[in-house]
Amino acid sequence: MPLSPLAPAAFPDLPVIDGVTFAAAQAGVKYKNRTDVMLAVLAPGSTVTGVFTRSATRSAPVLDCQSKLGGGDGPAAILVNSGNSNAFTGKAGLESVSAITAAVANATGVDAARVFTASTGVIGEPLPHDRIVAKIVELIDGQSATAMDDAARAIMTTDTFPKGSTQTITINGKSVKIAGIAKGSGMIAPDMATMLVYIFTDAQIAYQPLQDMLSRLTNNTFNNITVDSDTSTSDSLMLAATGASGVDVTGNAAFEDALHSVMLDLSHQVVRDGEGATKFVTIAVTGAATDADARLVAMATANSPLVKTAIAGEDPNWGRIVMAVGKSGAQADRDALTIRLGDLVLAENGWRSPSYSEDEAAAYMKQQDLTIGIDLGLGNGTSTVWTCDLTHEYITINADYRS
Amino acid sequence: MPLSPLAPAAFPDLPVIDGVTFAAAQAGVKYKNRTDVMLAVLAPGSTVTGVFTRSATRSAPVLDCQSKLGGGDGPAAILVNSGNSNAFTGKAGLESVSAITAAVANATGVDAARVFTASTGVIGEPLPHDRIVAKIVELIDGQSATAMDDAARAIMTTDTFPKGSTQTITINGKSVKIAGIAKGSGMIAPDMATMLVYIFTDAQIAYQPLQDMLSRLTNNTFNNITVDSDTSTSDSLMLAATGASGVDVTGNAAFEDALHSVMLDLSHQVVRDGEGATKFVTIAVTGAATDADARLVAMATANSPLVKTAIAGEDPNWGRIVMAVGKSGAQADRDALTIRLGDLVLAENGWRSPSYSEDEAAAYMKQQDLTIGIDLGLGNGTSTVWTCDLTHEYITINADYRS
Repeated sequence: MPLSPLAPAAFPDLPVIDGVTFAAAQAGVKYKNRTDVMLAVLAPGSTVTGVFTRSATRSAPVLDCQSKLGGGDGPAAILVNSGNSNAFTGKAGLESVSAITAAVANATGVDAARVFTASTGVIGEPLPHDRIVAKIVELIDGQSATAMDDAARAIMTTDTFPKGSTQTITINGKSVKIAGIAKGSGMIAPDMATMLVYIFTDAQIAYQPLQDMLSRLTNNTFNNITVDSDTSTSDSLMLAATGASGVDVTGNAAFEDALHSVMLDLSHQVVRDGEGATKFVTIAVTGAATDADARLVAMATANSPLVKTAIAGEDPNWGRIVMAVGKSGAQADRDALTIRLGDLVLAENGWRSPSYSEDEAAAYMKQQDLTIGIDLGLGNGTSTVWTCDLTHEYITINADYRS
Repeated sequence: MPLSPLAPAAFPDLPVIDGVTFAAAQAGVKYKNRTDVMLAVLAPGSTVTGVFTRSATRSAPVLDCQSKLGGGDGPAAILVNSGNSNAFTGKAGLESVSAITAAVANATGVDAARVFTASTGVIGEPLPHDRIVAKIVELIDGQSATAMDDAARAIMTTDTFPKGSTQTITINGKSVKIAGIAKGSGMIAPDMATMLVYIFTDAQIAYQPLQDMLSRLTNNTFNNITVDSDTSTSDSLMLAATGASGVDVTGNAAFEDALHSVMLDLSHQVVRDGEGATKFVTIAVTGAATDADARLVAMATANSPLVKTAIAGEDPNWGRIVMAVGKSGAQADRDALTIRLGDLVLAENGWRSPSYSEDEAAAYMKQQDLTIGIDLGLGNGTSTVWTCDLTHEYITINADYRS
């Protein structure tokens, strides 16, 4: 798969987060000649939080992780494989999870109730968990504080680049670090995209306030991105705080801002690696009757195949945006609607804007990063959603027979 | 545009419907060297009913038609142009409708309140209604009882074939005829696809019972098809009964069945002409907790880009169907779910079926007409939805710059 044209220039330099180590290995779950399993081990006292897909058919590892959140304060471990999602695999799916968590627990001494797993890849195929279990000793022996980038590569599926982001802030003269990795490029939609995201910090904070912060920030980051409107059975976002910095960040706004930055950056990287994407699109809706209405309009626009193909064709076809507003289900008034591309006003007062220039709009569409502004002119509701275009390459990637 | 591989072998032989005549003309609204406007004139006493898009940004002609339904019993007229939808055209849009209806009224003697119009094509461009008005005399002079097929061609936009369907039934020894035409191939989704549909019958029936029958039948036909989940600002379905047969069909089940057949056939033809379609797919959901839940699952599956691209690739990737069930929002239980392709059971009891054969499933996917069966195993709710696959050709058609 060629590198996405929207990829960042380089993978960031991720700092060491005291209290967590990483390793990756080649288990051969499905892929050959690449790493496909990663293990992170967290020091005793680490706080582990998470948010997960709301799919009614969510995978065995997701169900297992959800049942384990909020318990214990000993060491913890996170094991993730790519190539097989262990979703819709019946009772065998939970057996695979048990086999892997038991093996990690035995080899590390971590309580099995603090071993979290995730699997990403094809749905409905039995997970050959023996291949993963066989690599656990190698994964433990290889643990390194500087191997988070290896972990980022091991969890990739159709991703064309590994995704990482970091922020360091100073609180009361002490440094607090946050660093995260993510994977995801198809089956990306709200209510968590098809993603796996792991974020680590050396901040000190208890379970409930950290869980609340994570849920709050997810709503304006990962829950507001969409590639193809499809929601995965495996989406998982976990955040672990080792406490090694000794800085209590409970209720600290600077920490929350920094975490938000990392989450926003990672969520945008997922969109930038959207299958076949050639444009990164911000859909900013304002003036809606409510925030919920604004989100309906933003998502209807972001998920419209006709809007997405027009963007792929660099066509400022704002009529399709009008269509998306109309079908969204949100309260709308044709004559109060304003549609912008960047700073260009395309339509207002129920009609093409008098200042509209097809040449200017077409020139704007040639940019790689686009902002579509939709003001409904009705109230104060706002929502911003990020998406990409829909291209031939998306069809090529997804219409290929599994093999 | 090449003919859809799913096109019917031939356009049907439409019978004369006593009490209605047709003509088509080349007005040059946008297209060159083809007809782009049609006029139907209905005898005095004709009953005219309709259902229309629920879009919040619906077009000027739709608003005008909705305001006129149920009034008067003199003669009536329907004028339709292709090439420009007269949607999001501000006050000028209603002025165009007024100019056209006034001109038709003046030239035919039909009350302007009984002149219905529709426009289909690009959104947001002013409609050059003078070109249409200039053709009205030609359209009146050309009226013919046998020209319904010409009308079917004049209303096409990106359609690759004209769409017609007919049924004749005998009631009390007398023949009652129904014949209809339709256009539509992109921007097709529930709550009326992007379609124009005109159905004529010589049956005799008053406004309210006919309107009720039309609304009822629309819910199981045109409202259950989807090509790309996008809903047009212009969708219109009108049904006119001239009464010329002298047969009162109020409450007549055979008539309703025949009308249902015509509507189902036309709605399926719209899917068969879906932009880029190579497969006609029936999604039959059973065993849902409620009919509404069944429809959520059917539509989530039919609109999933990942399901649609898998169908295009002839890949029996039932994991993506599991994903669509999970994201639909309907009540679902992984272990009660059964997924079928035709008669083949792919998945059941939360797991791949023991009888599953990848070869058999792959062979099934090579058919042009496919049925995906989803049984939720929870209750008696059912819903059937019709859709097509998502192919490179869809992208090619819709990512082209407007020109």
